Amino acid sequence: MTTRVNFQLELEALDEALEEMADMVENNIEKSLASFEKRNVELAREIVQGDRAVDDMQRSIEARCLSLMLHQQPVVARDLRMVSSALKIVTDLERIGDHAQDIAELVLRISDANVMENVGHIVEMASKAKLMMKNGIRAYTTRNTELAYQVIDADDEVDDLFNEVKEEISKLLQEKREPVDDCVDILMIAKYLERIADHAVNICEWTEFNETGTVQNIRLL
Amino acid sequence: MTTRVNFQLELEALDEALEEMADMVENNIEKSLASFEKRNVELAREIVQGDRAVDDMQRSIEARCLSLMLHQQPVVARDLRMVSSALKIVTDLERIGDHAQDIAELVLRISDANVMENVGHIVEMASKAKLMMKNGIRAYTTRNTELAYQVIDADDEVDDLFNEVKEEISKLLQEKREPVDDCVDILMIAKYLERIADHAVNICEWTEFNETGTVQNIRLL
Repeated sequence: MTTRVNFQLELEALDEALEEMADMVENNIEKSLASFEKRNVELAREIVQGDRAVDDMQRSIEARCLSLMLHQQPVVARDLRMVSSALKIVTDLERIGDHAQDIAELVLRISDANVMENVGHIVEMASKAKLMMKNGIRAYTTRNTELAYQVIDADDEVDDLFNEVKEEISKLLQEKREPVDDCVDILMIAKYLERIADHAVNICEWTEFNETGTVQNIRLL
Repeated sequence: MTTRVNFQLELEALDEALEEMADMVENNIEKSLASFEKRNVELAREIVQGDRAVDDMQRSIEARCLSLMLHQQPVVARDLRMVSSALKIVTDLERIGDHAQDIAELVLRISDANVMENVGHIVEMASKAKLMMKNGIRAYTTRNTELAYQVIDADDEVDDLFNEVKEEISKLLQEKREPVDDCVDILMIAKYLERIADHAVNICEWTEFNETGTVQNIRLL
């Protein structure tokens, strides 16, 4: 087997590892948001106690990328783009996984079961952020730059929804209709959702880079 | 001049570019926090209107790292560690720069000049987060892993201060002593400070990697 064939096999294995990690993270965030939307304390507890699988996966993929760079010496720009975008994307995936835990921790603290009915935009925000993350990951794994651009465009909607949520919470606080702690916790959950959307955008920017060598029309390689 | 010498020169130039970007970001965050602590609207406006210099610097360093990987083919693990840690750290620096802008935007919105006196812990939080960032950058540029570990350890203090701030704000909201919007904005500023501290920790983890090839005792290269 030539070195080149060997390298291609290792790139495919790297891609599979990344998909596996993405599945894990997607699953965690799905569960975390379900625990939030359905106020399912059991589910939230499961996520908070969650194992270090995502972190371990991150380190293992990083080590794999670095080893490929050192020992296989990518000589084609396309190969290096794939390895370096993988090295970047694992950070975003790991952060999304962290936010799944952050949200679950807050779900466990929220005392008033009705607070969400008064913060109507957060459910829409959660569903948009989740879709951005799913599509961002799909755009990367299927090398679909069109989808990547759609995800990047959707970020403004999530930002707008975050502002709506902030206003709803300010109103609730002014009217003293909900416990203050719950309002603050919901606001934090909204902030995590906004961050998840940001990480989806990052993943899409590296998808663009992987295919074109450019990010936001700036040539990197 | 041998290729090896040439490569060393390029690594040094990369290091200088990274220091330049770090200086820019450090300066922005200093100004942003000064605008917050002294409620200096002029300064805040300057940061919000700030140019794209940090973003451009990020892309230029990334391009430089990728070009080094492709054309110079680092064959020594140490060289690859330097290039790959630079590739990782620029993301954290750029995010810290973003948060400087985020904070300045909120400073412009806060209407009540006295709100900070009632959220005593935020000044301490800001000063600790700023120190973590400065020391994190210094640890990286001076290859000081001892300092890096100190920064990583300090993160718990910032997290504790964030909880104190949340409690202070919940109390203010309950007592209706400050405008709700201001309280929500201060909470967001605290969240950005907590994120800045997290990015400082990331920078320190890549400092550890750069020197030792390990992150959190896990060997990556």
